[in-house]
Amino acid sequence: MRLADLSTPSLILDRGTLAANCAAMAARAAKLGVRLRPHLKTAKSAEAARIATAGQFGGITVSTLAEARYFAGHGFRDITYGVGIAPGKLDEVARLQAEGARLQLVTDDVATVGAVAQRALELKAAFQLLIEIDTGGGRAGVLPEAPALLEIGRAIAAAPGLSLLGVMTHAGHSYRCKGGDAIAAVAEEERAGVVRAAERLEAAGLPSPVVSVGATPTAMFARALPGVTEMRPGVYTLMDLYQMAIGVCRREDIAASVLASVIGHNPRTGRILIDAGALALSQDRGAASLMEHTGFGWVCDAVTGKPLDGLYVAEVNQEHGMIAAAKGAPPFERLPLGARVRILPNHVCMMAAPYDRYHVVEGGADVVAVWDKATGW
Amino acid sequence: MRLADLSTPSLILDRGTLAANCAAMAARAAKLGVRLRPHLKTAKSAEAARIATAGQFGGITVSTLAEARYFAGHGFRDITYGVGIAPGKLDEVARLQAEGARLQLVTDDVATVGAVAQRALELKAAFQLLIEIDTGGGRAGVLPEAPALLEIGRAIAAAPGLSLLGVMTHAGHSYRCKGGDAIAAVAEEERAGVVRAAERLEAAGLPSPVVSVGATPTAMFARALPGVTEMRPGVYTLMDLYQMAIGVCRREDIAASVLASVIGHNPRTGRILIDAGALALSQDRGAASLMEHTGFGWVCDAVTGKPLDGLYVAEVNQEHGMIAAAKGAPPFERLPLGARVRILPNHVCMMAAPYDRYHVVEGGADVVAVWDKATGW
Repeated sequence: MRLADLSTPSLILDRGTLAANCAAMAARAAKLGVRLRPHLKTAKSAEAARIATAGQFGGITVSTLAEARYFAGHGFRDITYGVGIAPGKLDEVARLQAEGARLQLVTDDVATVGAVAQRALELKAAFQLLIEIDTGGGRAGVLPEAPALLEIGRAIAAAPGLSLLGVMTHAGHSYRCKGGDAIAAVAEEERAGVVRAAERLEAAGLPSPVVSVGATPTAMFARALPGVTEMRPGVYTLMDLYQMAIGVCRREDIAASVLASVIGHNPRTGRILIDAGALALSQDRGAASLMEHTGFGWVCDAVTGKPLDGLYVAEVNQEHGMIAAAKGAPPFERLPLGARVRILPNHVCMMAAPYDRYHVVEGGADVVAVWDKATGW
Repeated sequence: MRLADLSTPSLILDRGTLAANCAAMAARAAKLGVRLRPHLKTAKSAEAARIATAGQFGGITVSTLAEARYFAGHGFRDITYGVGIAPGKLDEVARLQAEGARLQLVTDDVATVGAVAQRALELKAAFQLLIEIDTGGGRAGVLPEAPALLEIGRAIAAAPGLSLLGVMTHAGHSYRCKGGDAIAAVAEEERAGVVRAAERLEAAGLPSPVVSVGATPTAMFARALPGVTEMRPGVYTLMDLYQMAIGVCRREDIAASVLASVIGHNPRTGRILIDAGALALSQDRGAASLMEHTGFGWVCDAVTGKPLDGLYVAEVNQEHGMIAAAKGAPPFERLPLGARVRILPNHVCMMAAPYDRYHVVEGGADVVAVWDKATGW
């Protein structure tokens, strides 16, 4: 099978680029002396997960129970579900555990600990919990110095059926930085905050064997991670224009793109229409807020994957994408109807999510594999 | 099964509201004297399509070949694929036709007609074409007065294996209007343009039995449609906050929402966290550009579906939604962890797309049916 044979839109993954990204992050983890627990919310693929966990301890992170179910079904047993647990999800967690998976759940709420403990009794199940720490991201978690931290820790430790595994954080604010020095400063905030939380728990006689950080920018630029035991970056596997814009990767490190067909020319508006729109590319505009002429993604050659200078997807409707040129009219003759292009993502987690498979290439026109992936919830 | 038993996020559809929306549009079509060919890119569901086509001639519109395949498999044979055809899709079209479907394809490009004719010969297939007309939307289509219109029409008529069915247009610019009078003016532009194109074809001896318009706002507010034979609105089936904001529907007409669980409280930022984020709600901000305190959707009671005053999803990450209040802090006590809410969509086509099923309610807490739906490409 070749790229030219695929229906469009299709999701393309360059295996060599993925492998290089994974090797680079494995080297980072080794250098920093922490375990690597890749976040698979980005790739959502067992084959990609095998590459990302090669040579590692085998643990992974997920963002939905659908991902947990998919990866458990593909032999990944040590799974952190990195989104705050709601008691209504515990029956499904218990089912997955009964089938052999070992899930780590996350909470920042003492009332939730009570509800989880109650459901553990009712289901005759055991649940393992990490306490989420807010190290500056401002989304979820208790502050490292909050009294609630010890209250939650004690409630977990006291409940039959529950185990306190430790603490975790996500430096979401690293996405709002640009460049290595600014990101390194956030990485140190992330580290210091979560380590401080672990120390407070341990000083209170509460074990915290896991001290987990996680975000691709901080994983890339952290200078040292004393006290941290693991990291959970995810987007590094595939990379995207946003990571490039904040200085985390090069364009050549972006491993995923969407193959699209030209379906129209509009000389009056200066647009080339493609069959990849708001659903196929997502409506994420992250990178466009940092780089001019980015829109909903950069337009690349279908085979080489290299940018066609100055071409970007300026607008999207549900199944229509509108390509514009940075200057003047786009090259209608070079991209006649039926021609194919590849679009680099603003935010690859958003772009890849709706597809049920990757068409895998190795830098050329041949599709060397088709990998299934998780979708939905 | 009850709403309280569902995993979250889940996509909820109120059948009574859908049926009322479909009855209202059927009455509009009857009053305007045109056939109704519902666009199923919004609902993507065979059960919804049965309600939308009840009492009609049975034709539908789709935006992807995956939808065409799904609906053909559920007995819908008369299908307009409303996105400009790329020659690479013709093998799949021919397969669907060999299995009994009858597809109408769309083009605005004479070179594409040549490529389609060539492939028809190679596949020993017959393809039926509509010429897309730009009546002011500025996306695709030839202008009603363009010389290219006759050139395309003649090329189709002359090619063995191809049939010219007529003309179609989509008044995308009706989405940029507000209120019945402004939309009625666009509806008249849409009608006049596509009818003029049909007249030019017929004057040149080229038949144009189909004269098709299509957009929910213009379908709702067109005053008369002389010369038009059919309309293809879609979003009316489910409606959303954007249609409400431009005056096309009431809040009570919105038939779809996402059921979500509260997974966190952040008193420092004044946010209630839910497990429906950028993927579960989409990143569409259409309605937020027209109405304050809309964000990524309005927050409603989980059972009644009625808005919880002033609460909206202010921010989203991949699987996290952050609820804010229009004034002050959100009601943490009223929405404890584990509580459930429903989120009304900015743009329902975007919100519904990634889900593989609807959980159907009839205004209450019981799930009265589960309907499958199409996803992906």
